[in-house]
Amino acid sequence: MGKCPFIESLAFIVLAGILFPVTLSGEGAPISEDSEMCIECHASLHPGIVEDWGKSPHAQTTPAQGIAKTALERLISAEKVAPTMADNAVGCAECHTMNPSQHKDSFEHNGYQVHTVVTPADCSQCHPVEASQYEGNMMSHAYGNLQGNSLYRSLVDSVNGIQTFQDAKIIHNLSDADTDADSCLYCHGTNIQVKGNRKIETDAGEMTFPVLSGWPNQGVGRINPDGSMGSCSACHTRHGFDLSVARKPDTCSECHKGPDVPAYGVYNVSKHGNLYSSQAGKWDFSAVPWIVGKDFTAPTCASCHASLLVNKEGDVISQRTHRMNDRLYVRLFGLIYAHSHPRSPDTSVIRNSAGLPLPAELTGEPATGYLIDDLEQEKRRSEMQNVCLSCHSRGWVDGHFERLEHSVKTTNEMTLTATKILISAWEKGAAKGPAQNDVIFNEAIEKKWVEQWLFYANSTRFASAMAGADYGAFANGRWHMAKNIQEMIDWMKIHSNSDR
Amino acid sequence: MGKCPFIESLAFIVLAGILFPVTLSGEGAPISEDSEMCIECHASLHPGIVEDWGKSPHAQTTPAQGIAKTALERLISAEKVAPTMADNAVGCAECHTMNPSQHKDSFEHNGYQVHTVVTPADCSQCHPVEASQYEGNMMSHAYGNLQGNSLYRSLVDSVNGIQTFQDAKIIHNLSDADTDADSCLYCHGTNIQVKGNRKIETDAGEMTFPVLSGWPNQGVGRINPDGSMGSCSACHTRHGFDLSVARKPDTCSECHKGPDVPAYGVYNVSKHGNLYSSQAGKWDFSAVPWIVGKDFTAPTCASCHASLLVNKEGDVISQRTHRMNDRLYVRLFGLIYAHSHPRSPDTSVIRNSAGLPLPAELTGEPATGYLIDDLEQEKRRSEMQNVCLSCHSRGWVDGHFERLEHSVKTTNEMTLTATKILISAWEKGAAKGPAQNDVIFNEAIEKKWVEQWLFYANSTRFASAMAGADYGAFANGRWHMAKNIQEMIDWMKIHSNSDR
Amino acid sequence: MGKCPFIESLAFIVLAGILFPVTLSGEGAPISEDSEMCIECHASLHPGIVEDWGKSPHAQTTPAQGIAKTALERLISAEKVAPTMADNAVGCAECHTMNPSQHKDSFEHNGYQVHTVVTPADCSQCHPVEASQYEGNMMSHAYGNLQGNSLYRSLVDSVNGIQTFQDAKIIHNLSDADTDADSCLYCHGTNIQVKGNRKIETDAGEMTFPVLSGWPNQGVGRINPDGSMGSCSACHTRHGFDLSVARKPDTCSECHKGPDVPAYGVYNVSKHGNLYSSQAGKWDFSAVPWIVGKDFTAPTCASCHASLLVNKEGDVISQRTHRMNDRLYVRLFGLIYAHSHPRSPDTSVIRNSAGLPLPAELTGEPATGYLIDDLEQEKRRSEMQNVCLSCHSRGWVDGHFERLEHSVKTTNEMTLTATKILISAWEKGAAKGPAQNDVIFNEAIEKKWVEQWLFYANSTRFASAMAGADYGAFANGRWHMAKNIQEMIDWMKIHSNSDR
Repeated sequence: MGKCPFIESLAFIVLAGILFPVTLSGEGAPISEDSEMCIECHASLHPGIVEDWGKSPHAQTTPAQGIAKTALERLISAEKVAPTMADNAVGCAECHTMNPSQHKDSFEHNGYQVHTVVTPADCSQCHPVEASQYEGNMMSHAYGNLQGNSLYRSLVDSVNGIQTFQDAKIIHNLSDADTDADSCLYCHGTNIQVKGNRKIETDAGEMTFPVLSGWPNQGVGRINPDGSMGSCSACHTRHGFDLSVARKPDTCSECHKGPDVPAYGVYNVSKHGNLYSSQAGKWDFSAVPWIVGKDFTAPTCASCHASLLVNKEGDVISQRTHRMNDRLYVRLFGLIYAHSHPRSPDTSVIRNSAGLPLPAELTGEPATGYLIDDLEQEKRRSEMQNVCLSCHSRGWVDGHFERLEHSVKTTNEMTLTATKILISAWEKGAAKGPAQNDVIFNEAIEKKWVEQWLFYANSTRFASAMAGADYGAFANGRWHMAKNIQEMIDWMKIHSNSDR
Repeated sequence: MGKCPFIESLAFIVLAGILFPVTLSGEGAPISEDSEMCIECHASLHPGIVEDWGKSPHAQTTPAQGIAKTALERLISAEKVAPTMADNAVGCAECHTMNPSQHKDSFEHNGYQVHTVVTPADCSQCHPVEASQYEGNMMSHAYGNLQGNSLYRSLVDSVNGIQTFQDAKIIHNLSDADTDADSCLYCHGTNIQVKGNRKIETDAGEMTFPVLSGWPNQGVGRINPDGSMGSCSACHTRHGFDLSVARKPDTCSECHKGPDVPAYGVYNVSKHGNLYSSQAGKWDFSAVPWIVGKDFTAPTCASCHASLLVNKEGDVISQRTHRMNDRLYVRLFGLIYAHSHPRSPDTSVIRNSAGLPLPAELTGEPATGYLIDDLEQEKRRSEMQNVCLSCHSRGWVDGHFERLEHSVKTTNEMTLTATKILISAWEKGAAKGPAQNDVIFNEAIEKKWVEQWLFYANSTRFASAMAGADYGAFANGRWHMAKNIQEMIDWMKIHSNSDR
Repeated sequence: MGKCPFIESLAFIVLAGILFPVTLSGEGAPISEDSEMCIECHASLHPGIVEDWGKSPHAQTTPAQGIAKTALERLISAEKVAPTMADNAVGCAECHTMNPSQHKDSFEHNGYQVHTVVTPADCSQCHPVEASQYEGNMMSHAYGNLQGNSLYRSLVDSVNGIQTFQDAKIIHNLSDADTDADSCLYCHGTNIQVKGNRKIETDAGEMTFPVLSGWPNQGVGRINPDGSMGSCSACHTRHGFDLSVARKPDTCSECHKGPDVPAYGVYNVSKHGNLYSSQAGKWDFSAVPWIVGKDFTAPTCASCHASLLVNKEGDVISQRTHRMNDRLYVRLFGLIYAHSHPRSPDTSVIRNSAGLPLPAELTGEPATGYLIDDLEQEKRRSEMQNVCLSCHSRGWVDGHFERLEHSVKTTNEMTLTATKILISAWEKGAAKGPAQNDVIFNEAIEKKWVEQWLFYANSTRFASAMAGADYGAFANGRWHMAKNIQEMIDWMKIHSNSDR
C-alpha cells in the first residue's frame, strides 16, 4: 500500500474513531488538580455525572482553545478568561467553586468552598454575551412574572391549591411551596434559598451540607443563591452540555408541550416536524456554525428562535441570540389576548387601564404603553422571515404570515365572546366575579373561560404560526373554541335559572 | 497490501462514502442549462431548497437511468420521457416550466415561463401510473368532498366560523377563506387561483409575481391552477423527495394525528409502532423494492397502505399503489357510521334515502348503491391480509379481523344511541334541529354527538384496526363513548326541563 | 501495508461488518433439524418472522455459549439446559414444541406436536430466574386482578358495554369477550382457551388447526393454555427478542401511555425523556451488563425498574429484576387512592373494612393488613434511590422524593373531596349509588369521579415521581383535578334541584 499512504493513514484515523470513540476525560483537555480531587470520589459516587461530563465540550476543549477559534466557530464569547482557567478543561471545580463569596449556598467541603447551584453568573465567566442576552429574555423573569403578578398568583392557587368539601360547600385553599415547585415552578423556576444545614453519614465520614428550599430545580427563571436569575441547564443539560440536545425540539418540549404552550405538539404535526422526525438521524446537530440545507433540511425550535445560521458560503442568515423574543413580534400565548410583545422582560410592572396587571383590557384593547411599537414589530418579523426565506419564496412567506395575522385576530374575537359571556354570568349572579371580590379563576365557567384563551386560542395561534395546522382544527383548537362557547352559554343559562 | 487490492479499493470506496457524502448536485446527474440558470440566483436566495434538492434522487439520477432499472427497482413509471429531459437531472426548470400553457399561474421570469405550483399533472410526465392511481384515490377529491357537501360545509362553518355574543345570544358567523386554509384545507387542500400580480423589489431589480389565493398549501386534494387535483409534495416533501420520508409514519401524521383521524396515535401505541420507534434506525427506508423482514421488521403506514413489498426472493407480496383504498374494505373514519367504502372517490355525489349527502341514514343503514359490494370488499380485505400474513399466521390474522368487525358493529351501535338521544332532544325542543332548519352541528349537544362518532367511535375502530388497543380504551375511545352518552342524556333532560 | 497487518485485518473486519451485516441464520448458531423443517415452509409463508428471528440472539447464540459467559454478561439464567438444546440455536421447534403435554393448544402438524402460544413456562427452560421473578410481579396477575375483582369487573362493563336508548332511558348492557380483548385485556391479557378445530386449505393441502379464544394476545397477565400466566413477548417482542427494544420506553408505552397510566407521556416531557429522545442514537442498548454513564446518560423505564446496572468498574448498582415492584414502594396508579404496595401480586384477595375489594376505604384509609409495611417500603425506596444516586446527589434525590410524598398526599386529598361530593350526590338522590345497589361507575358524575383518580390524580403523581412536572400542571394533572371538582359540585346541585 506504499502507493497511497494517504488512504492508509486515513483508514487508521477513521477506524480508530469507530473503534475507540473518545469518551474518557483523560483523552480530552487537561484536568485541573482541583477537579481531579472532585473526580476521585465522585466518579464512583455518581458515575453517570462524571461520564457524561467526560463526553462534553467542557472536558474536550480548554477555554483558550475555544477562544482561538474563528468568530463563526466560537462557542465561548469571552475574549479572555482567568489564566488559571484558560488551559484546563472546564471541570467540576471550575464551576462549582466559582465566585464563592457571591453564593449563599457555598459550603466547606474537603477544603473547598463548593456550591451546588451553578448559575448564569457562573457561566458568564466564559459566556458573557449569552448571559447578558438572557437577562433581556423574558424567560429569565419567569419566576417574578408569575409570582409577582397578583392575578397570575391567584391562577396558580386555583390550579394547585387543595379544595376541600365541608358543609356541602367547596373551600379553596392556597397552594404551597412544594406543590408549586412540582407544578408551575418546575418550568418557571423556584426561589432557591439556604434553609439550614444537615449532617449526612457518608463513606468518608459525617459531612455537613446546606439544605436548600426549592431544590432540585432547573427552571428558566430560577432565583439563584447568588442573586442571578435563570438556569442555563434548563436547555444546556448537565453535565454533557451537548449542543445537539439544546438544538433538538425535545429540550424545548420539557416546558412547551402542555395544552397551555403546545409548541412541540404543533411542531410535531407540521412539515418541519415531520422532516425532523424522519431525517434527523442524517443531520449534523453539532456543527458550528450551523449551515442551512447542508447540516439540516428543516428547522428545529433553535433554528428559528435562537441559533446562528449561515449558508454554505458562511454568510450569516441569522445571528445567535439568547433573547428569544428577538425574532418574535407578537406574543401568542400565556395571556388572555395575543398582542405585540412587552417592552421589558419584567412583565409584572404592566398595568392595563383598569389597573389589572395585564397587557390588555379584559375586553382585548392592548396596554400599548407597555408593548413594543410597530417599528420594533416590523424589525423582529423581518428577523424571523430571514430564516423562513432561506427555504421558502417571498410569496410563500407572505402568505404564511397573513394567515397568522388573521388567526391572531379571529382567536382574539373568540376569546372576547367567551369573556362577554363570563362578564354576563358575573352580572347575573350566576358566578361570583370581581364585584364580589372573588378570584376569577375558581368556578367552572371561569375555568372554561381560561381554557378558551390559555388552551384553545393559544393552540390555534401556534398552529398558524408554525404551520402545524391540523393541531388548530380538532386537536386543541378551533373545534374546542367553538364548543366551549356553547358550553359556557349553557352554563350561564342554567346557573342563572337555578336557585344556587 | 498488493496481496489484496480488492480490500484496498473497497476501503477506499467505503471511506470515501463516510468522509465525502455526495451532497453536491455537481456530483450527481448533469444539470440542464435552464436549471443552472435558476440555481445561479436561487442557491444564495434560498440555500435550503437547493441543498435539499442536491441530495434528492431527482438530482442524482436521470430519467433515462431510472427507466433502465429493472421493473421492481424502478421509481419512474413512464416508459419514455421527452428527449430533452432524459439525460439531465430533474431540476428546477424541468418541473417549474413544464406545460406552461396549462398553468394559469405561469409568469414571465427572466425569459422563462415559470409556475410556482408544481402539480400531479406535471409529475405525471415521469410518474404517469402513480398520477393515474392517485386520481382514483379519495384523497385527490378531498377538497370537493368537503366543500361540495352541503352538510360537511356547515360542519366546517360551525368549527371555523366566529361566534359573537350580542343581546345575550350567540350569533354564528360563516367561516372565511383564510381560516379554512389554516384549518380544514391545510390537509384537504385549498383552491389555488391567480388573484392578480404584484411587484417586488429584489436584488435583481423590480420583478412581477402572481398573487395566489390559498397559497401556500400542500393539501392532498388541492385544486391546482392547471386544473389538476392534489399535491404530490403532501407526502413526497420538496425538494428532497426522499423516499424514506414518505415511508415513515411522520409524513402521514401531518394529517392523520388529530382526534378525528388518530391513525398516528394508534400506531404509536401498537406493537408495530413500538418496533418502528425502537428499531427504525437499523432499517432501510430507501431500498427499492422493499423487502419484508430484511429491510424492516414492522410495518409503517406505507407498508400496509401503499408500498410495493417483496420477500427476499423478489416475489411480490403487495403491489405499489397510490390509490390508498385498494387495501381498505371498510371506511372507519370521517363519517357518522363506519361502512363499506364508497365506489367513487368523489363522495359529494352520494345521497342517502332522506336526500342527505351521506353514505348512510342518520340511523345507520348504509346507502348501499353508492358503496362497494361484498365481492370488492373481500378482494380488498385479502389484499391487506396478504401484508399481515408476511409476519403473522392465518389464525392470528383471522382473530384480528374478527375483532375489527366487532368493533365496527359496537361503535356503530354506540353512535346510534347518541343519535337517538339527539333526535329526542330535537323532538322535545331542547335543541333546534333539521325541523327548525337549523345547522345540526352548532349546539352543545350536537357537538357532543359529533364527538361520539368523529372522535370516539373513530378512535376505537382505528385502535382495533391497527392493534393499538390501549388507545381505544381510555385514550380517546370506549371510556369517552360511554361517558359522552351519559352527558348527552343529562344535557337533554336539563334542557328539556329548563325554560330556554 | 506489510508494516501493520493489524490495521489491515481490522479494516477487513470492520468493513465486512459494514458491508455484510449478519442477518442470515445460516451464519449464526447451528439450527436443529426440527427447526430447519419449520423454516423450510415458513420462510416463504411468513418471511418477516423468519428474518426477524435470524437477527435475534436466539439465532446467533446457543444456550451453551450463553451459559459460558460471565455472571454479569449472561442473559440465560439456567445453569444447564437439555442436552438436545444446548448446542443449537433456539429456533422454531425449540419453543413451539416444548412441553407438548402441558399445552392444551398442542396439535399435530407434519409429524410434530406444535403449539401456537409460547408461554413463560416454556421460556423458563432457559430463563428460570426471570420466570420465577415474574410470577411475583403484579403484572402476571393482571387478568385475575381485573376480572376477579367484582368492582373492577363492573368498571370494565361500564366502559366496554353497549348503552342503548329505549323509552327515553339508557340501558346498560354487559361487555363481551371480543370487546374486552380489544380493550382492557389487550394489556391485561386474555384467557386463551381451545374452542375447537378448523380445517384450512393451504398450499400443502388441507390442514387442521386449533381455534383459540382470546387470540391473538400478548397481554402481561395472559392466561395460557398450559396454565401459566403472562406473556414474555409483551416486552420481549417476537421473534427478534431484541434486548434494545425491551430497554426502550416505546415498549412500556404500549400499555403505559393512556390517561390512566401516563408513564410514557410523563417520561417524554421530563429531562430524562428529553435526553433519551435527543441522544438515544448514541447510546448502547445492547450492552450487557449496562454501564451507567458509558452506555447511556439518562434512564429509560427499564433502567429504573428492571435492568441490571453497573458502573465502569463492574460494581453492581442495581440487580436485574422481573418483579417490577422490587423498586416501587408506593402504588401510584390504578386505584382510588395511592398507598403502599400490596403484599401479594394477586390483589383480588384484598378486602377493605367495608368488604369491598379495594386496598383502601372509599374515604382513603389504607387496608394495611394487605399492604407492605414501612420496613419493606424503606427497602424498596432505597433500591430505587440507588439508581437515582448514580447521577444525582443525595440532596437532589431527597428533595425529589419529598415532593413525591407531598404529591401523594395532596392528590389523595383532592380525590377525597371528589369522593365526598359523590357520596353527597348519592345521599341526595341526585345519582344512584351502592344504597340503590347500582353500579358506581355508570352515571356522569360517577365517571367524573373516576377521572379524578384514574386520570388526574394519577397523572399528577406520575409527573412528580418521574420529574415530568409539566404533565402534572395543565396536561392532565392539577388543572383538571381543580376543574373537575367544580364540575362535580355543579352537577350535584343541578341534579339535586331537577326533577329527574
